[in-house]
Amino acid sequence: MERKVSLKDIAQKVGVSTALVSYVLNNKRENRVSKELARRIRETAAEMNYRTNQVARSLKTNKTYTIGLIVADIANSFSSGLARIIEDEAEQHQYTVIYSSNDENAHKCGKLIDTLLDRKVDGLIIAPPAFSEHQLIYLQQQRVPFVLVDRYFPDLPTNYVALDNYGMAFKGIEHLIQVGCRRIGMITYKTELHHLQERRRGYTAALKKHRLPVSKKLVREVDIKLETTAIENAIDSLLSGEEPVDGLLFSANNIALAGLKYISTLPVKVPDQLAIVSFDETEALEFFYAPFAYIKQPLPEMGRLATHLLLESIEKGSATTQVNLEGELILKKPYAPR
Amino acid sequence: MERKVSLKDIAQKVGVSTALVSYVLNNKRENRVSKELARRIRETAAEMNYRTNQVARSLKTNKTYTIGLIVADIANSFSSGLARIIEDEAEQHQYTVIYSSNDENAHKCGKLIDTLLDRKVDGLIIAPPAFSEHQLIYLQQQRVPFVLVDRYFPDLPTNYVALDNYGMAFKGIEHLIQVGCRRIGMITYKTELHHLQERRRGYTAALKKHRLPVSKKLVREVDIKLETTAIENAIDSLLSGEEPVDGLLFSANNIALAGLKYISTLPVKVPDQLAIVSFDETEALEFFYAPFAYIKQPLPEMGRLATHLLLESIEKGSATTQVNLEGELILKKPYAPR
Repeated sequence: MERKVSLKDIAQKVGVSTALVSYVLNNKRENRVSKELARRIRETAAEMNYRTNQVARSLKTNKTYTIGLIVADIANSFSSGLARIIEDEAEQHQYTVIYSSNDENAHKCGKLIDTLLDRKVDGLIIAPPAFSEHQLIYLQQQRVPFVLVDRYFPDLPTNYVALDNYGMAFKGIEHLIQVGCRRIGMITYKTELHHLQERRRGYTAALKKHRLPVSKKLVREVDIKLETTAIENAIDSLLSGEEPVDGLLFSANNIALAGLKYISTLPVKVPDQLAIVSFDETEALEFFYAPFAYIKQPLPEMGRLATHLLLESIEKGSATTQVNLEGELILKKPYAPR
Repeated sequence: MERKVSLKDIAQKVGVSTALVSYVLNNKRENRVSKELARRIRETAAEMNYRTNQVARSLKTNKTYTIGLIVADIANSFSSGLARIIEDEAEQHQYTVIYSSNDENAHKCGKLIDTLLDRKVDGLIIAPPAFSEHQLIYLQQQRVPFVLVDRYFPDLPTNYVALDNYGMAFKGIEHLIQVGCRRIGMITYKTELHHLQERRRGYTAALKKHRLPVSKKLVREVDIKLETTAIENAIDSLLSGEEPVDGLLFSANNIALAGLKYISTLPVKVPDQLAIVSFDETEALEFFYAPFAYIKQPLPEMGRLATHLLLESIEKGSATTQVNLEGELILKKPYAPR
């Protein structure tokens, strides 16, 4: 095996001091070095196959500079977008992120927590599935720093960063009412997940405030293991009968994706006969033919704040911080090819 | 802290043997247990917060039953889709996957390899960025089992599972020729990555075979840190002048996404004036208004095969296996809302 490349080797090759190389490779953000020189140092380090001496650093600080991230489903663009932001933000602070999906399964989430703790991560960022409270209590008992993201348990005093789900659903429904909807349905997942319950609560509260019909029949629940046909059936049933809905709230991006695809094949006119609001943003929705509204989650803020809270918790053992972020209601223009 | 729940505790609660509980929770796939009973055992285990005694298992086998996966960019649906398949496949074999993005950056990839090895993964699946050969050679010297996926280095004898990129590009171009294109352009990344070079080689070979114009002017390279305007400029320039292209190959999903979005705003008619073939499949493309073709990568096969090769390599130290999988040319119907 080759001798390990040191900072000194790189410094000699570039012709600068070892301190300067260390400064650049450790990504300090202040601007004391010219961009050109920083680039040259980084390129030389890469050419020489330099590796940060992580083990030595860990011995000095008793930390591994690794964060574990447990998302719901990495194949969902919400999860993967969030993972990417957390990864980038952690890197700014010289932390590496390793992650995995819990697949909305508490048992799997528990196994992942064990695996990541066995791998000696310094802390965890978790989008917890339903029924995983006891795992979080276990982490608290073991004094493992962690921050919940996207989801949380209202009765559990943990750090979390989530959307103001109630408020944003309320806002979405008020938008539908404002454009003239009088009978508004909702399609959501059948789940105990608090953040989805909050969306439903916001939906109901807005209808009540405006004295519009509230009824169990207007809310259709589909299995969280997405079943396209279940969503199609829900839409069929909400649009049929004597009183079809004229407004519809999709409570998550995967429901919206399957729903809009299906609605495209129906004779109903969007938005004249049916106006739509959806949670989350995906690239696919941009190509939808008709105008509709969606609630854009502040992913960059959510990911960065969760990372900061975790690092603070790792480094200082901070107090519990709970944040519900504002989203943004976006009115998407129709996709109109010329 | 609570006492750790054992298999025996679960067995007593369900009223079956400890062996049966172990059998079910270890996911043996043969069908010796009724589904109902298996479900009951799993639910009880989850309720009791049972955790596999991973440490004991590791001590027995000197393995951690963890795989490290390094993808290019988890925010890209190709990476996240592949990650999800590998995760599911590994779980079938009781392995946990932890992953991270290398961001097409060899230095970052090296850091991730170090981090994952420090965390004692049993092996690695890597989509290597350009200029990372020396890291793979290092892994070989250290006898770390690994399998490359999606990308590989032709001069490096490593396990890999990738697409037949040359063949599929060739097939895509022959499709464009068959529907009448006579001047075919290509938009691709400016990169040394072999798999993208192979796509370009396939493009050129098909044009040559059919005696159609081959010219550097017909191939536009954009920076891999996706610049939407660069793609728009490339399209503008290929469509302008005395000899505009009548066919176009996009060499990756992100190029296709930005490209199709832009083409939607142009007066050019797809497919009559401009026929399109793209690599990769994304949900967004399904909503594109016009018919076009795409090369669907066999993600499930790619992910499963890579996982199998790695597990074989971990367990038996197998010989080098290199696989170039066939893709499928899909003719997408136009998205036509009623």
